[in-house]
Amino acid sequence: MNKGFVAINYITCEADYASRFEDLFRTRARAIDRMPGFRFMSVLKPQKEGEPYLVVSHWDSEDHFKAWTNSPEFLEGHKRGFEDVRRAKESGQKPPMVSVFKTYEVITD
Amino acid sequence: MNKGFVAINYITCEADYASRFEDLFRTRARAIDRMPGFRFMSVLKPQKEGEPYLVVSHWDSEDHFKAWTNSPEFLEGHKRGFEDVRRAKESGQKPPMVSVFKTYEVITD
Repeated sequence: MNKGFVAINYITCEADYASRFEDLFRTRARAIDRMPGFRFMSVLKPQKEGEPYLVVSHWDSEDHFKAWTNSPEFLEGHKRGFEDVRRAKESGQKPPMVSVFKTYEVITD
Repeated sequence: MNKGFVAINYITCEADYASRFEDLFRTRARAIDRMPGFRFMSVLKPQKEGEPYLVVSHWDSEDHFKAWTNSPEFLEGHKRGFEDVRRAKESGQKPPMVSVFKTYEVITD
């Protein structure tokens, strides 16, 4: 039985980017909320310094998630963050955040 | 504003223990569900082999979570898993699972 699908983005921020990072999510576009099969998401701040933030999104299925990553809503939702990374790159600076992406099957609630 | 608290147990299983591990959660005692301040939980199976399972629990606050870890419900909920680990230890075997515990503040949904 399909209990759902979860994608987690593990994002490590430079220390001086953390407050900007949190602001981006607190004022997020909510473009993802319009996607078919989207259930909910949580943005988690680690209590221990130096650990990554977790952006956890819950979906009805992997296909729904994949459709989102190929949608205009994906670009809209990541616009400001992608722009920050692009700007750092262009000026030869270290990227302000680095993310690692992992996917999961929900086995139970 | 307090948006909630999340605890994640990152559990790496021995390959031959994985199906038992999943069964334990699929038939879990649901003792945690009775705790004040408990919101919901998700048990996540990694799509990539060798990655840890994630047991994610959402709480109203860190205090609610801490009260659970000191409760009889905590022992009740972990009884079978703790017993498996104890038995392996007693017979000089490698523990069937190893867990790392991390805690988070919810910054937004």
